Amino acid sequence: MTETATLMRTESREEQDTKKLVIMAWSGDLDKVWPTLILATTGAAMGQQVTVFFTFWGLFPLVRNDVRVTGENWMQKMLSLFNRGGTEHLKLGKMQFAGMGPRMMRKLARAHKVASPQELLELAQDLGVKLVPCQMTMDMLGLQREDLIDGLEEPAGATTALLDAQGATTLFI
Amino acid sequence: MTETATLMRTESREEQDTKKLVIMAWSGDLDKVWPTLILATTGAAMGQQVTVFFTFWGLFPLVRNDVRVTGENWMQKMLSLFNRGGTEHLKLGKMQFAGMGPRMMRKLARAHKVASPQELLELAQDLGVKLVPCQMTMDMLGLQREDLIDGLEEPAGATTALLDAQGATTLFI
Amino acid sequence: MTETATLMRTESREEQDTKKLVIMAWSGDLDKVWPTLILATTGAAMGQQVTVFFTFWGLFPLVRNDVRVTGENWMQKMLSLFNRGGTEHLKLGKMQFAGMGPRMMRKLARAHKVASPQELLELAQDLGVKLVPCQMTMDMLGLQREDLIDGLEEPAGATTALLDAQGATTLFI
Repeated sequence: MTETATLMRTESREEQDTKKLVIMAWSGDLDKVWPTLILATTGAAMGQQVTVFFTFWGLFPLVRNDVRVTGENWMQKMLSLFNRGGTEHLKLGKMQFAGMGPRMMRKLARAHKVASPQELLELAQDLGVKLVPCQMTMDMLGLQREDLIDGLEEPAGATTALLDAQGATTLFI
Repeated sequence: MTETATLMRTESREEQDTKKLVIMAWSGDLDKVWPTLILATTGAAMGQQVTVFFTFWGLFPLVRNDVRVTGENWMQKMLSLFNRGGTEHLKLGKMQFAGMGPRMMRKLARAHKVASPQELLELAQDLGVKLVPCQMTMDMLGLQREDLIDGLEEPAGATTALLDAQGATTLFI
Repeated sequence: MTETATLMRTESREEQDTKKLVIMAWSGDLDKVWPTLILATTGAAMGQQVTVFFTFWGLFPLVRNDVRVTGENWMQKMLSLFNRGGTEHLKLGKMQFAGMGPRMMRKLARAHKVASPQELLELAQDLGVKLVPCQMTMDMLGLQREDLIDGLEEPAGATTALLDAQGATTLFI
């Protein structure tokens, strides 16, 4: 192996480290979706190669806002009734205040020019952030591809996520 | 230092980065234990060197399923009464539905051939995942070594976790 | 590029990897503030260069203990009433027991010589841990610089956090 080859390997590794951001988006709460999408879009705007893996509750914000009930059996349907998907229906992880909390938080965000989850999601897509739904969760929670918004990558699993995470800044949110 | 030495260092670093997965398992909720163990076993199956540090609430899933009350003083005992340990007694972080939630989730998982936490824990051990309980939490929450399942590493602390995290994909779940 | 240069780059990269710990502290709950500050101070004591970015609920533990209400409009004020800031007023993420939980947990910690959040925060500052409040959250939640404790870095945003995270062990807590 020549010095050049060594150098190339070192450079390629450096490139990997400095340019990749992988977020495992597990939570579907408004107050977690915000940092997920703010970090993802900021990373992409900085030239990082960003991938967000949406898993478990994190999949629900990817549900189309006009889809009401998802799931094939009563358990999955009940779940979606109590936890409606879509960026317009997100709840807070705490301080729910009987629904007042999320509305207040969105109002505060608007007043301070913080983009809404919906705007950030569209911005992420414009900036080339890869949005990957977790296949296993989709199966388990009864989410069909057509329940989810357009412009997502093919559903994938933990192996893909872990491969992508190699040499990346990786966050579980 | 020779070119070979440089190369070796580069390789050893690469080995570190691509082959290590460190998870700090803070939560004992069913919906967090699942991704923890799915990522850990997937990583190990891919040939990664995987370590899971169990800390705080994360320790409770490691309690033996036949142990009812843990702790030495009334506070620790009360804690264990309201938060029974063991893979069979995990709750959901949200959507508890008076206990229905976890049962529903397990049923959905079974229907879609997602392994149970107990199966994943055993698989992790078979695959050589290192399961390390946090000593400080054990002391604080009154968990004795004999309250926990067999096959764990020696209890350790934050220093060990941070050393292990160097050059690894690290997730706080 | 000479072999020495290659070596230097490799070393500088290694230095980066092994010596940086970046924590994004999103939660203001007692049971998350503890691991955040224990990891931060342990890392610093081990010679790592540690930065903690406090964002969203994570900002509230940085509020001065003698400040009661924060915020400029009624929404922000209401938020601070229900979620009082300061290390002395932290709640647990679960097991609140009508306020009993945090008190019990602090008592257990004291009995086992685990430092309090306040002590750990001061220790972190003594050890040179950089504590950075998130500017966007401060604006949104109505937190002024004078509401927060002394000794913090200048407020910053996601770009700074992601730049700092490059080559570091990064945790989202």
